[in-house]
Amino acid sequence: MVGGGRGAFIGAVHRMAAALDGEIELVAGAFSQDPDKARASGADLMLPPERCYGSFQEMIEQEKKRADGIDIVSIVTPNYMHFPPAKMALENGFHVICDKPATFSLDEAVELKRIIEKTGLCFGLTHNYTGYPMVKQARFLVQSGALGKIRKIVVEYPQGWLSENVELTGYKQAEWRTDPKRSGMGGAVGDIGTHAENLAEYITGLKITEVCADVSTFVDGRLLDDDANVLLHFENGAKGLLHCSQIANGEENGLNIRVHGQKGSVRWQQLEPNTLHHYDNDGARTYRPSVGNLCDSAKAHIRLPAGHPEGYLEAFANIYRNFSRTVRKTINGETPNAFDLDFPTIDDGIRGMQFIETVIESGRSNAKWVKFKN
Amino acid sequence: MVGGGRGAFIGAVHRMAAALDGEIELVAGAFSQDPDKARASGADLMLPPERCYGSFQEMIEQEKKRADGIDIVSIVTPNYMHFPPAKMALENGFHVICDKPATFSLDEAVELKRIIEKTGLCFGLTHNYTGYPMVKQARFLVQSGALGKIRKIVVEYPQGWLSENVELTGYKQAEWRTDPKRSGMGGAVGDIGTHAENLAEYITGLKITEVCADVSTFVDGRLLDDDANVLLHFENGAKGLLHCSQIANGEENGLNIRVHGQKGSVRWQQLEPNTLHHYDNDGARTYRPSVGNLCDSAKAHIRLPAGHPEGYLEAFANIYRNFSRTVRKTINGETPNAFDLDFPTIDDGIRGMQFIETVIESGRSNAKWVKFKN
Amino acid sequence: MVGGGRGAFIGAVHRMAAALDGEIELVAGAFSQDPDKARASGADLMLPPERCYGSFQEMIEQEKKRADGIDIVSIVTPNYMHFPPAKMALENGFHVICDKPATFSLDEAVELKRIIEKTGLCFGLTHNYTGYPMVKQARFLVQSGALGKIRKIVVEYPQGWLSENVELTGYKQAEWRTDPKRSGMGGAVGDIGTHAENLAEYITGLKITEVCADVSTFVDGRLLDDDANVLLHFENGAKGLLHCSQIANGEENGLNIRVHGQKGSVRWQQLEPNTLHHYDNDGARTYRPSVGNLCDSAKAHIRLPAGHPEGYLEAFANIYRNFSRTVRKTINGETPNAFDLDFPTIDDGIRGMQFIETVIESGRSNAKWVKFKN
Amino acid sequence: MVGGGRGAFIGAVHRMAAALDGEIELVAGAFSQDPDKARASGADLMLPPERCYGSFQEMIEQEKKRADGIDIVSIVTPNYMHFPPAKMALENGFHVICDKPATFSLDEAVELKRIIEKTGLCFGLTHNYTGYPMVKQARFLVQSGALGKIRKIVVEYPQGWLSENVELTGYKQAEWRTDPKRSGMGGAVGDIGTHAENLAEYITGLKITEVCADVSTFVDGRLLDDDANVLLHFENGAKGLLHCSQIANGEENGLNIRVHGQKGSVRWQQLEPNTLHHYDNDGARTYRPSVGNLCDSAKAHIRLPAGHPEGYLEAFANIYRNFSRTVRKTINGETPNAFDLDFPTIDDGIRGMQFIETVIESGRSNAKWVKFKN
Repeated sequence: MVGGGRGAFIGAVHRMAAALDGEIELVAGAFSQDPDKARASGADLMLPPERCYGSFQEMIEQEKKRADGIDIVSIVTPNYMHFPPAKMALENGFHVICDKPATFSLDEAVELKRIIEKTGLCFGLTHNYTGYPMVKQARFLVQSGALGKIRKIVVEYPQGWLSENVELTGYKQAEWRTDPKRSGMGGAVGDIGTHAENLAEYITGLKITEVCADVSTFVDGRLLDDDANVLLHFENGAKGLLHCSQIANGEENGLNIRVHGQKGSVRWQQLEPNTLHHYDNDGARTYRPSVGNLCDSAKAHIRLPAGHPEGYLEAFANIYRNFSRTVRKTINGETPNAFDLDFPTIDDGIRGMQFIETVIESGRSNAKWVKFKN
Repeated sequence: MVGGGRGAFIGAVHRMAAALDGEIELVAGAFSQDPDKARASGADLMLPPERCYGSFQEMIEQEKKRADGIDIVSIVTPNYMHFPPAKMALENGFHVICDKPATFSLDEAVELKRIIEKTGLCFGLTHNYTGYPMVKQARFLVQSGALGKIRKIVVEYPQGWLSENVELTGYKQAEWRTDPKRSGMGGAVGDIGTHAENLAEYITGLKITEVCADVSTFVDGRLLDDDANVLLHFENGAKGLLHCSQIANGEENGLNIRVHGQKGSVRWQQLEPNTLHHYDNDGARTYRPSVGNLCDSAKAHIRLPAGHPEGYLEAFANIYRNFSRTVRKTINGETPNAFDLDFPTIDDGIRGMQFIETVIESGRSNAKWVKFKN
Repeated sequence: MVGGGRGAFIGAVHRMAAALDGEIELVAGAFSQDPDKARASGADLMLPPERCYGSFQEMIEQEKKRADGIDIVSIVTPNYMHFPPAKMALENGFHVICDKPATFSLDEAVELKRIIEKTGLCFGLTHNYTGYPMVKQARFLVQSGALGKIRKIVVEYPQGWLSENVELTGYKQAEWRTDPKRSGMGGAVGDIGTHAENLAEYITGLKITEVCADVSTFVDGRLLDDDANVLLHFENGAKGLLHCSQIANGEENGLNIRVHGQKGSVRWQQLEPNTLHHYDNDGARTYRPSVGNLCDSAKAHIRLPAGHPEGYLEAFANIYRNFSRTVRKTINGETPNAFDLDFPTIDDGIRGMQFIETVIESGRSNAKWVKFKN
Repeated sequence: MVGGGRGAFIGAVHRMAAALDGEIELVAGAFSQDPDKARASGADLMLPPERCYGSFQEMIEQEKKRADGIDIVSIVTPNYMHFPPAKMALENGFHVICDKPATFSLDEAVELKRIIEKTGLCFGLTHNYTGYPMVKQARFLVQSGALGKIRKIVVEYPQGWLSENVELTGYKQAEWRTDPKRSGMGGAVGDIGTHAENLAEYITGLKITEVCADVSTFVDGRLLDDDANVLLHFENGAKGLLHCSQIANGEENGLNIRVHGQKGSVRWQQLEPNTLHHYDNDGARTYRPSVGNLCDSAKAHIRLPAGHPEGYLEAFANIYRNFSRTVRKTINGETPNAFDLDFPTIDDGIRGMQFIETVIESGRSNAKWVKFKN
């Protein structure tokens, strides 16, 4: 693991997600650029000090030498520190799983794809929300034609935690996310807008072709956007809206999506992730994990019988489990099946970086529509 | 009453809303342009045949002559037939209450305002959703500063009933709403978008200054829009989104609003109108009719103790009751109080017509932002 | 109308319910036993002073003499004052609609039934909750066999408004409801327990055969029960629970029911009366007014298109409308249809009084089960 | 681990719960009484074959000899197989964590407590629902006096999965739960009624003193109860109801509780475990994980920031984590703190067995009230 030392948030999430299914084990880490903190963080996790490295370079070099060295490098650092360890890990023969957005810039993401293709190794991106079983079911309903031709998509991701200037109070999670040197070009757009974009494209199978964005920074002195309202055009003539915010005071993590087709609609809300609403002009029904008929993909991503709520970590773990199964089969020379391969890849990463750069450009532009960057 | 004969929808709503509080009585009508249907409709309502007129002109002329003639003309016809009876009624000394949008075009609305001012009579517009007590409470929370400076407004009004070409099946409600000769320039934008616009401006007290609209007609052969996604700029720097649809299959009448201020947020949903959510980063509370402390205006618009759900008709009746009290006091030479005067007027009507014409223009424009029409 | 003067609650409800559909008109009243208050209350309602009587006796005598006298007497007094005006009205040829519970005691109810049968007049009882369209749909699902054999019924009616001794503060609604001289034997059991009992029997068509009750008075000094938990046996082997409370602090008017059959279940909650949940081990669906296929009875009790919430007053008005249509047809020598006749009668009233007296007896008994009183 | 081989449900839950926080590692097991299945199950879990034992006796004997032997025995077998391995493990110096209910009979539970006290070892019981953070918050609100004196408790646990005779179809989870030789005296009462009882006593800190139960078996041929409705008396004069069912068709795992005090109420529902409703006659508020002020105990049992739903496994893991910390500190000679010690013990186990035996006895009795067994 690269990053994820004391005080980090997403590192612990990755560790719990990886541990849940017992298919992957944390054995080494470069948890911090501060060697003392790196070792202390490793000790918290009961790792031997010799495998708690002071830098990702050292980790990669040393682990490569070990017979029992790691197979997978998990990257949980701020965005600017995704590409360098990913590149080095891949070039040294390690598979890589990385937090989103893929990289600091679109150019880096494109370059990363080139490296992945060259090395033939596995690369996973933790757009974790697509790991929820009811998201799989929504995708199935679209793909099976149950909704008819898709006409309208409304996706939103409001949060309220950056309503004030908390990045000035020493709050690390806020500091790097509002710092263009570490986050990249996008604030809310990069951190959560990309999740919304990814979810919409995953469920519908449709790609955004152009956007019209109103990008704002409401908090004085903040250097990146903290709110964006975006009109969307999709490739088959579908229209959409995406809005994301870090200043929607009181909103927790309200990733929600509605997809309206000619024959029916689905609605899914991350805060109640175990219910999928499917409705049309004749009525409404719900899908719930382990209840009645679900598609195979939904079933493959549920661990528990009906009525036992699964949450964020289980969805995250689904990404990890699928990725680790793909890696294992790849190592063993087996062919991963469709469920194993159901995790976000560098292609999702490139879409996300295109989204960030296109939305930010649109926000600055007087043109109504800006085409998705290539 | 002008319009509202057999087969109409909103006429019956106006009648029930007027009847609920016993302050206004239906005694005459021009329910249809077809004299037989007009009389039959009147008979259904137990009106004497001599007060069931074949045209609004006849009604106004005859009622004017009666000692016990009507005081108020209620206009519940399709949009193109709002202005002519309103003008004639006002010019003959009758107060007028009219369904929304105010008129067929912005020009007519401006002219109507001139007539109202000239005659000094009362004019009410049934933007009924502002009649809900919890909408009053939301407005109070904004105005009292409980939310801090308003930053973001998300308002939406999805419906699904026009997902197919039902206007070709003889369905009257669909026919005139999709006919530019009877509806005017806007389809979904005019019929329901104006409700969303009115609700947002009513609750926040902020006016929209410019819009960026993506206006669509999804159903083949339809002559007016059936979907619109609109970015909004408000006068104090607040940003917003408004979307409305008649093709969101399975949506009933999903008028919803969220207002995010620097200090907190409110959320209200028309399908559960008796709950107002007030939340910020420290937690969430709900307001409910007749529970705990509510603002005076909310209390003035509740009829029942806690736990007795009031709905659409009661909210509609609140508009009627306030309007009729204002008329009565005006007739009696008394001064209406602030609660009496809390009903939409021609100014709301003009805002609505500006909204329609600006959004439609923006939908056709390549410019990113189009300023609100004057 | 008998009762319902200034300061009353349910009188105004009856008036609004009667007015909503324009089929019944309030023309006379004995609104209070205090003649001044009676007249003042009548004046509020724009009734002529000569038809605002100082007693129900006077009203019945005088109205009987008028050519344009009333057809129906509506009784909205406290329980002890139901039987005397009902008896006199019926014996003088008036149809009667009365608030629940039917009478002060079971004996009175039985006597009242005898009078009704003797006179051949119509008697309606406002167990208003059965007026909701989605309750009709629930009843239909049971009766049509969609749920299979009914096994378990859970019905509850928690309120919190009597958590403290508010009857000592001059609050009229609390005063008479906690006074055994005016309410009868039951407190919560009589006021709201009977609604729960009526709803359960209405939806399932099954009669309670015996009960096991734990009846409590939590508030010091209160003379009647304010809480009851009751085990139920129904006639076909179904089991059930009923609980009602006036001291469930913070509960509004939480009448809820779940009916579990061998093949499926329904759930309905009065605070969200426009949604009926129908679910089984394979999934869940909802029924909503004016959406998709509903039974004829549900459709006959809806006034508005989909998405326009109807509430307590509309359900109450359904009882009034059906009753008044039955009265009109009876007067006109026509035969009321099944929808007209769908209102609670003296038989429901007797069931309610049996329920009160059986539950109170069970509460005092050491026997586990007490059979329903006859 | 004892039990939990292929085809088991709760064994996998225990393993995931134990793995989540990385504080406990599965290293050996007696997963099945069938040695082949035991080894195959162990291989699935990547355990070495020599630590996959054919019986718990063998496991305990062999592990005791190893320097790196296990510290904790986790028992996930059907009820009749709790006591023997627990007794042997404790008597051989191992700490024990065991699924609920504690034992096959109350006598065994009492004997087990004697053994635990004699050995001085740790014993945890996985009444997992008390592990939810919002349950901790509910308990805090009661204990801090925010609700005032507790008056009424309504707790329920409906399920529908045994609506039909699925135990005859080879469904293992149904087979042993409906078999009195493996489950003990209680069916629904033992399997889920005990969870409801435990939750009510945990949150309120009040003990049930007597019950009045209506216990049913609805499915033909079933040997144990599948439904129970129970009136409760608690020690401070509080009244309550508990109902549990396996034949409430369509219910998933509907463990819900409402606690009504003189000053306010709380409501918690297992299917939406991240929201706690706190309400009184003046209004309602919600508590959510990582939002605003929560009690220390709630905060100590949350892993993620606001808006990241935690579910059943995380609550289960909280029990495991607290238990394992207590074990570790005990082994290290440290003193566990209050949070470490917040897991169910043999005392909860004895309460549960008392509940089962008292409710079943009451169900068979004509006496109204049966005192809680000692």
